Amino acid sequence: MAEILLASDLRGIASHGTARLPQYVKLVEAGVVDPAARPVRDAGREGFVRFDARNGWGHHAARVANDDAIDRARKLGTAVSAVRNTNHYGIAGWYPMRAAERGMIGMSLTNTSPLVAPTRARVSMLGTNPIAFAAPAGRYGALVLDMATSTVPRGRIEVAARRGEALPVGWAIGPGGEAARTAEAALAGALQPLGGEESNAGYKGYGLALMVEVLCGILADAAFGPNIVGLFSTDAPSNLGQFFLVIDPAAAGTLAGFEQRLEQLIDQLTSAPLIPNAPGPVLYHGQPEAERATEQLRTGIVIDREHWESLRRLASTYGVEAPEAAPLGAR
Amino acid sequence: MAEILLASDLRGIASHGTARLPQYVKLVEAGVVDPAARPVRDAGREGFVRFDARNGWGHHAARVANDDAIDRARKLGTAVSAVRNTNHYGIAGWYPMRAAERGMIGMSLTNTSPLVAPTRARVSMLGTNPIAFAAPAGRYGALVLDMATSTVPRGRIEVAARRGEALPVGWAIGPGGEAARTAEAALAGALQPLGGEESNAGYKGYGLALMVEVLCGILADAAFGPNIVGLFSTDAPSNLGQFFLVIDPAAAGTLAGFEQRLEQLIDQLTSAPLIPNAPGPVLYHGQPEAERATEQLRTGIVIDREHWESLRRLASTYGVEAPEAAPLGAR
Repeated sequence: MAEILLASDLRGIASHGTARLPQYVKLVEAGVVDPAARPVRDAGREGFVRFDARNGWGHHAARVANDDAIDRARKLGTAVSAVRNTNHYGIAGWYPMRAAERGMIGMSLTNTSPLVAPTRARVSMLGTNPIAFAAPAGRYGALVLDMATSTVPRGRIEVAARRGEALPVGWAIGPGGEAARTAEAALAGALQPLGGEESNAGYKGYGLALMVEVLCGILADAAFGPNIVGLFSTDAPSNLGQFFLVIDPAAAGTLAGFEQRLEQLIDQLTSAPLIPNAPGPVLYHGQPEAERATEQLRTGIVIDREHWESLRRLASTYGVEAPEAAPLGAR
Repeated sequence: MAEILLASDLRGIASHGTARLPQYVKLVEAGVVDPAARPVRDAGREGFVRFDARNGWGHHAARVANDDAIDRARKLGTAVSAVRNTNHYGIAGWYPMRAAERGMIGMSLTNTSPLVAPTRARVSMLGTNPIAFAAPAGRYGALVLDMATSTVPRGRIEVAARRGEALPVGWAIGPGGEAARTAEAALAGALQPLGGEESNAGYKGYGLALMVEVLCGILADAAFGPNIVGLFSTDAPSNLGQFFLVIDPAAAGTLAGFEQRLEQLIDQLTSAPLIPNAPGPVLYHGQPEAERATEQLRTGIVIDREHWESLRRLASTYGVEAPEAAPLGAR
């Protein structure tokens, strides 16, 4: 779990890293997550195994299930794991990245607390249900897509609230179902699926969120859709469902051939001629996060003061020695 | 192939049905597609098999590969097929629908001619690369998602051109890379990925199109991205790549349990309270097409006059008897 939280901070995804630790500890203190529980295989066949996380740490259960799928894919060419009775598992991209490091293609999906209104609905019925996908990419390292199926995550609305920004149409609806033009309206309403309004194909984002829900909650026999208790609520366990797919490209050809082709495609994409006023070159997915990780491995991980203080308080409460931190620019 | 084209017409997706027949025949007449070629298994392991379509009909090769994955998933719980050296396979949704009819979850992906500009690029580099997904849904029949990963398909721009409609931002860019506000500019430019502009998360649609490309062109060792020759061009074979994933929900639980849970989710989604001025209730994916198919099975398939005349000409050229048609309202 520590490894996964740190990988998130290292890649600059502060929202899913050690900043969550106080919330995780609160769930344990409230008896809502069982930190001693370990996942067990409870059903399946050779290519598709379901795990029961027994309401333990989501990160750990997901790692066990994903590693199991990697092992089976090496033999079969493809394998799936599903997990039920589980909890928040951090960045969805960590699991397929682990597959990519081993020369495999990986995919990871999770359902989450209902925050997104399906097209035409005015209430939240589905989570931001992310799709994460990674593939080994030779000298580009790995291609890593890790995206919520809503236009923006809820955290982006919270940033807009702090900045007093107006919201574009397509991000969220207010409590009455109208387009939310302020962060306050959005926070009282619901996020919109990728695409936004029906006229801009928001039903596609809704469809992707629904696909994730079918492969997670419905397939794993976990909680689903509007029935999921908030991930960080201490009312009851979340009983999330998660899904991991691994494919071994070497089963049809060679890993080297696969990587050469993907390098060529990324070469072509990143050298494409640009639109006017482009903020930079065409990127491939995972590139900014990989660059951030390389930089922070050298300089240390930058976190904000509030985050640091919360970790120090937690360390003090539990009698753990907190590492030293330096103000930005001091190194 | 006839069965798949008719299923498309029956579901009201005229763009992918028998209206394509004259184009398919032209490819054969030009020697660009080999109608006598049959697909062969050319690599793989038990869970992941690659087929070589040997430049025959895409529909047939896809059906063979998808059926093979269904058979292997019944044994293993999960199976993948990839196809290379193939051609246009009609509606992507037909293959997962076939899995759903057999109690399985299916997914089908294909790469296509480059028509979509990645975020920040001003030229087409990727296809509209569809994602199709289906699951058995009890009394709802099947959940069927079949979506291009662009905001809209090119056909929607052609409709706007005929109607003289202005385009919303997020559908397409013009040849200089600026937002296309007219269909003419869009047809000379490129489609935008789902989400549209970078500020509205168009990089997510770009990421989904790239994921499809990796699982089709790159994994199957077919043509990919900007290197694909137009699907209906007579210049050279397209050498498309396709991907089929099948999962047997009965491998972890029962099909009946899976369907009951999915029914409950669809019950909840379709009875959600609505936004103001909603054009109808919340839908589940595949619902309008299934309703259309039920109606047209009873009343006959409605096609436009131009479509009908093109089929009659083709029948006459090849000495095939054309079935009778009745003007709309005559039955």
